[in-house]
Amino acid sequence: MTARDLEELSPAEALRLLAGAPIGRIVFTRHALPAIRPVNHLVTGGQIIIRSNPGTVLSTEVAPSGAVVAFEADELDAERRLGWSVIVTGVARLVSDLEEAARYRARLRPWVSGEMDQVVRISPEIVTGFRLRPAPSTTI
Amino acid sequence: MTARDLEELSPAEALRLLAGAPIGRIVFTRHALPAIRPVNHLVTGGQIIIRSNPGTVLSTEVAPSGAVVAFEADELDAERRLGWSVIVTGVARLVSDLEEAARYRARLRPWVSGEMDQVVRISPEIVTGFRLRPAPSTTI
Repeated sequence: MTARDLEELSPAEALRLLAGAPIGRIVFTRHALPAIRPVNHLVTGGQIIIRSNPGTVLSTEVAPSGAVVAFEADELDAERRLGWSVIVTGVARLVSDLEEAARYRARLRPWVSGEMDQVVRISPEIVTGFRLRPAPSTTI
Repeated sequence: MTARDLEELSPAEALRLLAGAPIGRIVFTRHALPAIRPVNHLVTGGQIIIRSNPGTVLSTEVAPSGAVVAFEADELDAERRLGWSVIVTGVARLVSDLEEAARYRARLRPWVSGEMDQVVRISPEIVTGFRLRPAPSTTI
């Protein structure tokens, strides 16, 4: 299998890819330990919106305290070893404006049954991403 | 779109799914901030093995200090809203035994060009996972 080079993505390109990804993963700290949850999301006005169950750590601790989280999405083809990954780091906060929250809820359908009443906004501060592409041949 | 139920996976089933996933994501804390990197991995003897570039935070800070990390893999079909996700939490350490490290290197080919000399072992302490399945119909 040919090795690949990592090509850095611009923040704009990274956010564009993130917006088109069906799944993302929110990464946060829970009792000083790293935690991660897969979620569906939308990107609007440069911000990432997710929904969260009212009883979860995300809703009760992370978002109310304006904690820093990471958000990751990727589309990596293990067979061909091509694809991309995007990682955003930023502050998570509950969306408190009722109309705004309702608008996002209409666009962001939860996958699982049950309440998903909280809407969380992640404001990106650092946006990084890479794309894997074929490494140039080293033969002469 | 019909909603889904979350079915909890047993740790054994979760590790079995994780072993078959082509990609995982290691989650750790960097300067008190959550960080995540997609990696390829293997599962052997109930432990997760990944390779890491010598210069990275993972190799120089996380693994040498025996930090707690999370490791996630999923296979989620956004269209059908079916699939699974597994999250392992455990201590990461560099594999110091040279023969053991060489054995893992032979089985775990890096995707990108360049050195990937460090081998990191994650010893699971908490293994959780879910599978999405169709919610029972609520009509009578």
